[in-house]
Amino acid sequence: MSPYPSSASPTGQWKHLRVERAGGVVTVTLDRPDKLNALTFGSYADLRDLLAELAHDGETRVLVLAGAGRGFCSGGDVDEIIGATLGMGTGELLGFNRMTGQVVRAIREAPFPVIAAVHGIAAGAGAVLALAADFRIVEPSARFAFLFTRVGLAGADMGAAYLLPRMVGLGHATRLLMLGETVGAEEAERIGLVSQTAAEGEADAVAAALAERLAAGPSLAYQQTKALLTAELDMPLAAAVEMDAAAQALLMTSADYAEFHAAFTAKRPPRWEGR
Amino acid sequence: MSPYPSSASPTGQWKHLRVERAGGVVTVTLDRPDKLNALTFGSYADLRDLLAELAHDGETRVLVLAGAGRGFCSGGDVDEIIGATLGMGTGELLGFNRMTGQVVRAIREAPFPVIAAVHGIAAGAGAVLALAADFRIVEPSARFAFLFTRVGLAGADMGAAYLLPRMVGLGHATRLLMLGETVGAEEAERIGLVSQTAAEGEADAVAAALAERLAAGPSLAYQQTKALLTAELDMPLAAAVEMDAAAQALLMTSADYAEFHAAFTAKRPPRWEGR
Amino acid sequence: MSPYPSSASPTGQWKHLRVERAGGVVTVTLDRPDKLNALTFGSYADLRDLLAELAHDGETRVLVLAGAGRGFCSGGDVDEIIGATLGMGTGELLGFNRMTGQVVRAIREAPFPVIAAVHGIAAGAGAVLALAADFRIVEPSARFAFLFTRVGLAGADMGAAYLLPRMVGLGHATRLLMLGETVGAEEAERIGLVSQTAAEGEADAVAAALAERLAAGPSLAYQQTKALLTAELDMPLAAAVEMDAAAQALLMTSADYAEFHAAFTAKRPPRWEGR
Repeated sequence: MSPYPSSASPTGQWKHLRVERAGGVVTVTLDRPDKLNALTFGSYADLRDLLAELAHDGETRVLVLAGAGRGFCSGGDVDEIIGATLGMGTGELLGFNRMTGQVVRAIREAPFPVIAAVHGIAAGAGAVLALAADFRIVEPSARFAFLFTRVGLAGADMGAAYLLPRMVGLGHATRLLMLGETVGAEEAERIGLVSQTAAEGEADAVAAALAERLAAGPSLAYQQTKALLTAELDMPLAAAVEMDAAAQALLMTSADYAEFHAAFTAKRPPRWEGR
Repeated sequence: MSPYPSSASPTGQWKHLRVERAGGVVTVTLDRPDKLNALTFGSYADLRDLLAELAHDGETRVLVLAGAGRGFCSGGDVDEIIGATLGMGTGELLGFNRMTGQVVRAIREAPFPVIAAVHGIAAGAGAVLALAADFRIVEPSARFAFLFTRVGLAGADMGAAYLLPRMVGLGHATRLLMLGETVGAEEAERIGLVSQTAAEGEADAVAAALAERLAAGPSLAYQQTKALLTAELDMPLAAAVEMDAAAQALLMTSADYAEFHAAFTAKRPPRWEGR
Repeated sequence: MSPYPSSASPTGQWKHLRVERAGGVVTVTLDRPDKLNALTFGSYADLRDLLAELAHDGETRVLVLAGAGRGFCSGGDVDEIIGATLGMGTGELLGFNRMTGQVVRAIREAPFPVIAAVHGIAAGAGAVLALAADFRIVEPSARFAFLFTRVGLAGADMGAAYLLPRMVGLGHATRLLMLGETVGAEEAERIGLVSQTAAEGEADAVAAALAERLAAGPSLAYQQTKALLTAELDMPLAAAVEMDAAAQALLMTSADYAEFHAAFTAKRPPRWEGR
């Protein structure tokens, strides 16, 4: 339950995403397999609002992002999105692009780790969703394609030109974003885009296992680690060190830290409570 | 033709560089093969002014940087530059170093992609020119040497201590800049310094082919991708996402974006116009 | 001798570290082999004050950080540190964490290169000490473990969430800091955490050889290279290029730069003096 409930009631049903909860693990499946899970205005909006709700529901400890059918996500739908944006005015275009960027910010700023389970194609906005996640579980068949320039747009979409150089270096990022070429799992692994490989057909299972493990772990510690990783990309060293000192001092007052010491002393595994 | 011509007339002949234009592709060749294309005051100054002219000529879509003879560029000429700087006063020294840094800034801020075709040695300032490019096409014989400390200078020359950690990570960058060791093509590839490998003797041809492709593509999209990659290295996530939204909204009003949709619908290749 | 001696006298004996000086090379050995060199309040405090003294003693040209016995450093001592912090108040906790962060800042801001000679385990704060060094000489048996979340703390400790993404990219850094998994020497090498490998049992010797080389080299050039690498991680491109210009102009007035030219002209090796 949310520690600070507002007057808003949680959304009962998400129309454009499949959302399942099991304990602290929320699994969001892009579920338009006949369209390779192409994103629509509705699915962007659902992701934006779902992430906002999960951020303060007091229950979500891990989010898994997956795709149904043959691939992860083929990106924005050519008909429903590209076609529609051609008829839009300035304000509508800005509003749409702010919404998609907000999804990436919400993933990076979520107070829980996000795991992308990637099989088949992750293209365009689908590639950026995977990029924004904390972990990418990747099958051998997976392919990433930051194909924005191939539709006449900038490779810098939804923060990709910020995130990708910080993950694979400026050289590879320039090549991928400028040329929009497809990158297979092997190259993705080599340049630093893969957190963990999974056997063919096993990305969802491996992601679920990692999610279980994270959900059963010291969630305050994970939350702080993610928040500081995100924040310190944008901070100078001296400020980062000071921020670490305050954050770590705070966690040293947590129940989980005391529990570690008690368990270690008693030679038993710790029982994490996330507080 | 420049959309905003000033009173200045374009330079008719560059005395210290070989400059060739073919359509939107400008190829700049460092052409002192007997000196391994060592840079002189004149070639730095020509690079500075050439890049400024190309940036607003309204025609340049891609720049290729190559070296004549046995190597790419051996860096600043020991006699003409190191010798001469020994006799300089404070203001002259600062002026020279600002000029060389300006060349790197002009490459990073150019409104077109820059491709370095690297064979043989790329040393000192030559290594930094290649580093500043968007693409490095590299032959097996190529070697990079950020050898500044070997002449008693700082590894931080012309922005190298800014660019190299963002391309290969802080560990490798420290090693390369501090020790000035020579890095072969294989290691360069492994650490992220190579965009594309070319067979021996083929770097110029591969660079030309990439240049053709980029010149024939959606040039506004490439221009924005490069500008945002450069800018977002220095921006926090939230600002980068906001910048992307505005840039992408703008490109969604471009002719090339509409052309993509029309071509996709008609199942034909798009005819990019760069507007 | 310090060029600017104050009234404070240098510390005669460091009680919690083994400190040896040979010419310009200072070797600091973590020397509690029965505890895998676990850090104590005393050793953190000694590192903090030693680094401050070395920074202005006018003699130190290189620092080597090594561990006695079976490993490099197992991190903060579970009994002496974790146990003790459980009884601390807010101010004490903040003070402790600021002290540990200060050690990392002092390593990054030291006016000389720092070499970590790593064999066996480098865990927790031990992994961060190695991460903060300029060079990591690593034996095949070495293992890094940023295991903070495993004790219920944030992976962001002593600047790790700032430094690690800048060395191995955001993806690997997230995995290592969030999960606290042990990384072997081979993976460490692959992701960019290793500066140079050493044969088993040879890390100290290889580090000593590198230290000798650096101590005999152009120390102003090394000092500036390190200072600019550290500073330019936190600077935009334009400022970095301007800073390089001023720093390089300054070094062009140094004796070592003139010596390089004289030696090159006379076809003899340069005799570096570090001034």
